Amino acid sequence: MKATYTYGELAKLTETLLTALYGYSPAEARITAEVLVEADARNIPSHGVSRLDFYWENLKGGFAKPGAEPDIRYETPSSLVVDGHDGVGPYIADFSVRRILEKAEKQGSAFCSVRNSNHFGIAGFWAEKAAYKDMIGLAFTNTRPCGIPTFGRERVLGTNPICAAIPCGGDSPWIFMLDMATTTVAHGKVEVYDRRKQTMPAGWAVDDKGVVMHDATAFEKLFWANPQFGGHLYLGGEGEESGGHKGFGLGLLVELLCSGLSLGVASYDTFQKGKGSGITHFFGAIRLDLFGDAQALKAHIRGILDHIKNGAKAEGQGRIYLHGEKEAESRARALTNGITLDEATCTMLESLRAKAGLSGD
Amino acid sequence: MKATYTYGELAKLTETLLTALYGYSPAEARITAEVLVEADARNIPSHGVSRLDFYWENLKGGFAKPGAEPDIRYETPSSLVVDGHDGVGPYIADFSVRRILEKAEKQGSAFCSVRNSNHFGIAGFWAEKAAYKDMIGLAFTNTRPCGIPTFGRERVLGTNPICAAIPCGGDSPWIFMLDMATTTVAHGKVEVYDRRKQTMPAGWAVDDKGVVMHDATAFEKLFWANPQFGGHLYLGGEGEESGGHKGFGLGLLVELLCSGLSLGVASYDTFQKGKGSGITHFFGAIRLDLFGDAQALKAHIRGILDHIKNGAKAEGQGRIYLHGEKEAESRARALTNGITLDEATCTMLESLRAKAGLSGD
Repeated sequence: MKATYTYGELAKLTETLLTALYGYSPAEARITAEVLVEADARNIPSHGVSRLDFYWENLKGGFAKPGAEPDIRYETPSSLVVDGHDGVGPYIADFSVRRILEKAEKQGSAFCSVRNSNHFGIAGFWAEKAAYKDMIGLAFTNTRPCGIPTFGRERVLGTNPICAAIPCGGDSPWIFMLDMATTTVAHGKVEVYDRRKQTMPAGWAVDDKGVVMHDATAFEKLFWANPQFGGHLYLGGEGEESGGHKGFGLGLLVELLCSGLSLGVASYDTFQKGKGSGITHFFGAIRLDLFGDAQALKAHIRGILDHIKNGAKAEGQGRIYLHGEKEAESRARALTNGITLDEATCTMLESLRAKAGLSGD
Repeated sequence: MKATYTYGELAKLTETLLTALYGYSPAEARITAEVLVEADARNIPSHGVSRLDFYWENLKGGFAKPGAEPDIRYETPSSLVVDGHDGVGPYIADFSVRRILEKAEKQGSAFCSVRNSNHFGIAGFWAEKAAYKDMIGLAFTNTRPCGIPTFGRERVLGTNPICAAIPCGGDSPWIFMLDMATTTVAHGKVEVYDRRKQTMPAGWAVDDKGVVMHDATAFEKLFWANPQFGGHLYLGGEGEESGGHKGFGLGLLVELLCSGLSLGVASYDTFQKGKGSGITHFFGAIRLDLFGDAQALKAHIRGILDHIKNGAKAEGQGRIYLHGEKEAESRARALTNGITLDEATCTMLESLRAKAGLSGD
């Protein structure tokens, strides 16, 4: 069984599977394959081709409907409200981001809220489109509910990631890109701790009464057995002493930008039987040259980043990582050495390949 | 000694002290008094009139120069770069925010970066100006360096607060307002733990080698003795397991928006002897009606907030607080019952009053 693919092979295979088995149009399949393979290349396997499973569930559950065309429900010279009509997330995101980049090019900045979409892959893939055009890029999304408000016990918000990409000068192949779930960890981390029988730190999760859990296996059970109570904590953890209310506030801010500004459903109402998933997004693009000469600004930004990177390290640490660096380095390695997938993902791919009647290799 | 003031009395006294002793112009004194007293009214005493001490130090250290007029160094229909020329922070912030609100009124959104400013008080005071005009308001600032990057030990960034205000409908007297230091706690919290001999949780601070500290008294000593190494951790705490790199990323994002987009100095270069403090800000305003009817959007946003607020509570908890609620309730109480200051602040005020030759009461 093949475990390492070239970028091109994996993208082609994913695209073929999406058209052959999932009923995606060629355009839907192309952009979805790209965003999934980009995640694997950047070593974010939780959002890579392993997501084909989740996309399949969304298809079978009636949450995602390939072929649905997004349309514009409201528009100004610098904004856009898109209805995705339960279509393919990356296709809807691509539709939206292309349009705000055009608008920002003319107006200086532009923003877009999106309702009735689906999972759009890694947020960074969308935010960086702006950065490559010397704009600040923003990408947010809500998700299925999994997170617990400070002093609550009910799953109301999603992992609600924040992503901002800022263009910066210099020769290095990366840009500043913060792309973070506002929950302390994404659920994939819990699964790893469960498999390894590791103890979760205090700031990760609470049970159905709102009490902190450390047992990853017990939490994993509860998480899938109880659809409403117990779940992830936000960045900063439980209560207010270490700032859990701040992380919750960031998650709530993302919710208000995505479902609030699109008149879409909030995380707590996503994935209702008989309806589309209802996922909502928010995108923004702000031209750097709103603030002067873009080249001078990028050089200045790079200077700040370099200074911080070169600061003194903690005992036992050899490197301060800036946001986007690890992913850019992984991507460069993947383009040279290929993308190695874990066993479960390989098995899934091979089984899909067989189902589609494609020959293996 | 007077401990409780009406809002009006405290504002008047602060304004008088600033003109009589600090050399502030009437306009500088008025806006500075307002932003300080607003903080006390909202029960954020760390940013209230107790800051007169810090403002005095800034004056004596040559970091702040009352009378300096901000000017516009770069401008487009939807943006502004302001040089504060080391003037009074709230006066410069007021200059900047008024202008972006005017620009956003015409253009849909507007943004402003500011260099060579000073402490501008609570960020929320500036962000909410937009929210009262049915716009989303953003206010960020860098500060003197106090925070340590993930895997570092050198103080390079400030508390670098993030503030976003979102207008929302309903009868209640508050708006959604997230106003948070990106460090786990502001330094005032450490001082309280020091006085009470309480142990700090793991995610607050590291020593000069980058090792986590729990002893608030020892950290307090180190913090003032060593200007460069050891300091505050960012939201999520040490390392990456509980997301400390995310909090660091948020602080860095604020830095790039403030000092990056203004060509100003970064936190690590603020408060250099013989220069102004060099503090930088970033403001934004985005009209709600970029996304449709503002009333409908506000009602939808309020519905989401209400749903989350009314969710099931954790065992032993009676209430889920949304961001901005506590402060709005404190403010309403302060307008009725007056503002009660702590002893140290009262003593300082009385001593300033005597210095200015004002009669007590």
